[in-house]
Amino acid sequence: MSQTIGKKHWAIAEGYIPAWSHGPEPQMESHDTACLLNASDEDAHVSITVFFDDQEAVGPYSLTVPAGRTRHVRFNSLEDPAPVPRDTDFASVIESDVPIVVQHTRLDSRQADLALITTIAFAGDV
Amino acid sequence: MSQTIGKKHWAIAEGYIPAWSHGPEPQMESHDTACLLNASDEDAHVSITVFFDDQEAVGPYSLTVPAGRTRHVRFNSLEDPAPVPRDTDFASVIESDVPIVVQHTRLDSRQADLALITTIAFAGDV
Amino acid sequence: MSQTIGKKHWAIAEGYIPAWSHGPEPQMESHDTACLLNASDEDAHVSITVFFDDQEAVGPYSLTVPAGRTRHVRFNSLEDPAPVPRDTDFASVIESDVPIVVQHTRLDSRQADLALITTIAFAGDV
Amino acid sequence: MSQTIGKKHWAIAEGYIPAWSHGPEPQMESHDTACLLNASDEDAHVSITVFFDDQEAVGPYSLTVPAGRTRHVRFNSLEDPAPVPRDTDFASVIESDVPIVVQHTRLDSRQADLALITTIAFAGDV
Repeated sequence: MSQTIGKKHWAIAEGYIPAWSHGPEPQMESHDTACLLNASDEDAHVSITVFFDDQEAVGPYSLTVPAGRTRHVRFNSLEDPAPVPRDTDFASVIESDVPIVVQHTRLDSRQADLALITTIAFAGDV
Repeated sequence: MSQTIGKKHWAIAEGYIPAWSHGPEPQMESHDTACLLNASDEDAHVSITVFFDDQEAVGPYSLTVPAGRTRHVRFNSLEDPAPVPRDTDFASVIESDVPIVVQHTRLDSRQADLALITTIAFAGDV
Repeated sequence: MSQTIGKKHWAIAEGYIPAWSHGPEPQMESHDTACLLNASDEDAHVSITVFFDDQEAVGPYSLTVPAGRTRHVRFNSLEDPAPVPRDTDFASVIESDVPIVVQHTRLDSRQADLALITTIAFAGDV
Repeated sequence: MSQTIGKKHWAIAEGYIPAWSHGPEPQMESHDTACLLNASDEDAHVSITVFFDDQEAVGPYSLTVPAGRTRHVRFNSLEDPAPVPRDTDFASVIESDVPIVVQHTRLDSRQADLALITTIAFAGDV
């Protein structure tokens, strides 16, 4: 059951954490997420860099996705080296030392009923 | 009319079955789905493995997509070897012995009006 | 301004025309769409085949996307060789004699407020 | 922190600016967006061409994405050589002199609660 699939270099050109929410937390809190799947049998050491419109990129945010696990990382919860600002356009690059798969998802609950988006992120050549 | 298109190895890094629903079943029941298209003229024998954040992967879930057919598989309905838990982050890897195309879709009807997401899954090299 | 980009063979594994709608037509009529872009300087002759869960595939549906044009084709409006049934899972394969780009979009207005999905379709090798 | 990822040639086959909106601007104004990420250490000079169903393509729209920056470009705000019409199907091709990543996003607030879509755009060979 240790299927390796994925790439080591990924990008999400769209990023945005809505500034407010409607409904019970944590499920209905507005969030922007990078879903990381490590289907290999080695731990993945992952670095996320966050890019902005009008300031220098911030990062790396470092985390580990254990072998055979998935981690749905909310940009809302990234704190080190700096929190990701709300109501601000950003983008991100994700690098890993073993192949992973990255999917971008947002839940936006600013209005009475939620909206959702998802896409597989853009995979680099490696 | 037997066009072969697709890959044998796919991944969906995002998976989540909302824990409650609004509106008439089966259409409006919240669901997370892997849509499988087998445009070839041979039956596809498909294995799905489900990955979690904090426990071992579960699978394989086995199913057949006949030649020239599509099957929209709700993760809600997978039972063997174990049901997929609700309100829990997961991810999945899909393997087939003939090329297929995989697309991920969720309908979330937890609030009064539904939300939908879709993306073509990530295709491996084979 | 004649940029050629795309492939000649595409697939959409998810297809579904919601059976009812809310709001003014044509904008708010529930629809499932294949958006076709022909950025080349030759007309594209396109064939769409529709696949089902429990019956033989239907097609080809034939149409032309002129050079340097886009055509957003609602599956709702396909009539020849047969209309696409509502409230029924399907999938599709799109073939063209010149490279095109295909994107799948649905507007679902069954409940009071609309839901939308989109994804670039799966591109074959040619 | 200067990771280069991306391609120089992209396409979005779906484009549509909803003709009306609900809620406070600028966040809740209906918009169709090309999110551009330039993770390289050179400025990207970008040309966007917009394609229609029944008229000649319009462009190029020219803009710069500085090195290490992201720019979320609303089609609503493109003015030169001509504004993009509302309530009209279009598509677009994006070309850059350095590799970038392109993601398509729409916010549709025509009804009381917003709907969102996103997908990574289609990447050409270069």
